[in-house]
Amino acid sequence: MSRFLLKIAYDGTAYHGWQVQPNGITVQAVLCDALFNMCKSKISVTGCSRTDAGVHANEFFCHFDTNLDIPETAFVKGLNAILPDDISVLSCNGVSDDFHARYSAKGKNYLYRFYDGKTENPFYRRYALSVQNKLNVDLMNEYCSRMVGTHDFSGFSSSKRTVTDTVRTISECKVYRDGDFVVLSVTADGFLYNMVRIIAGTALQVSLGKINPLDTEKIIQSKNRDMAGATLLPHGLYLNKVIY
Amino acid sequence: MSRFLLKIAYDGTAYHGWQVQPNGITVQAVLCDALFNMCKSKISVTGCSRTDAGVHANEFFCHFDTNLDIPETAFVKGLNAILPDDISVLSCNGVSDDFHARYSAKGKNYLYRFYDGKTENPFYRRYALSVQNKLNVDLMNEYCSRMVGTHDFSGFSSSKRTVTDTVRTISECKVYRDGDFVVLSVTADGFLYNMVRIIAGTALQVSLGKINPLDTEKIIQSKNRDMAGATLLPHGLYLNKVIY
Repeated sequence: MSRFLLKIAYDGTAYHGWQVQPNGITVQAVLCDALFNMCKSKISVTGCSRTDAGVHANEFFCHFDTNLDIPETAFVKGLNAILPDDISVLSCNGVSDDFHARYSAKGKNYLYRFYDGKTENPFYRRYALSVQNKLNVDLMNEYCSRMVGTHDFSGFSSSKRTVTDTVRTISECKVYRDGDFVVLSVTADGFLYNMVRIIAGTALQVSLGKINPLDTEKIIQSKNRDMAGATLLPHGLYLNKVIY
Repeated sequence: MSRFLLKIAYDGTAYHGWQVQPNGITVQAVLCDALFNMCKSKISVTGCSRTDAGVHANEFFCHFDTNLDIPETAFVKGLNAILPDDISVLSCNGVSDDFHARYSAKGKNYLYRFYDGKTENPFYRRYALSVQNKLNVDLMNEYCSRMVGTHDFSGFSSSKRTVTDTVRTISECKVYRDGDFVVLSVTADGFLYNMVRIIAGTALQVSLGKINPLDTEKIIQSKNRDMAGATLLPHGLYLNKVIY
């Protein structure tokens, strides 16, 4: 058996997230079907994380094991020929048997994209959250810089979370403007359920003047979900980098 | 009766072009439905051009007449609330009765976008033509500069065209790189059927070394469709500006 690591990217608009589920098409299911079509044998694929319905990935890793003697580049070309337009295989590499797409990951970087252009733009509706007023990047960064560090982030997590350890280390959290887009970038050793969408929702409240960035530590320490901002819609969220 | 000019933008992926037709949903039909929903009266809309299935518009104009006393800004807000995510109204302005979205247009600017990044990108598949090899912008511009001028462009038009006058004036034709995108921009007083997609297809052949840019005049003068490049796929094409 050889283990392969696939790097893929996908537009999550049409999918119910990564993980196979009974209702709705998922990226994992479509990728498994493509592998079956290509290899004529059932191959199970393990992803680096679950992503929610509608969330995008600039970079997502998954591994699989096979006895088939297929070159790495053939997986890239073969799968891209079969996969729909909204999922692309970027690379395929042989890895050791103890490498695990999820457990070997040391950290992840997510982006949340806002669009604050003056006019509606039909091309960005599925790829960024449209907001009415120009965002205040400086104010948002006042808040973001205070999110960096090792904390119990239970107040920045959905109550639907299943983990008990809610301490995570955020190594980077910043906001930058890119034309009519404002991008929040956050890197951590791991993320709780809905954590990035709540961090971004709180940043939006800060920009609107409804949360004072100087209260960031207080909000974290409260461990109270109601103190942070709303969970923003999934279509602005991108898994951007996985650190191994 | 008052005449209003709407400026809209749309992602053409889901539409069979602008013009109402029996088979397939069109932008015109969806816009007319939205006007009917808003105004509770049937209002017909005249567009600045027909666009083909899958073609996008960063800017498209259409006019309509109504007796209803509705402020211009209310049309923008009301229609955007009704329209699907892939069509946006950018502005609405009252115009004189003799203004015509199509016949008053003095010229148009189209863009054709290529993507020549090293890896596949699922986010650009519907918005740019993916090409395998890096494009040669300098060589493409050698060709584009020779397309400028007043010529009979019948060799750069589909045989399905219905017009008899095939002379057009191209005032600008250039190519520029924008990261992993290469954009061909062409402005003329009017365009023949499929003209921009054939101009872009010829530019692609020039980049690939299959057409010599010094032969551009010869190709134009031949008036022979077979001398020019292939008609490229519609999803890279954008109506970008309309000049009134």
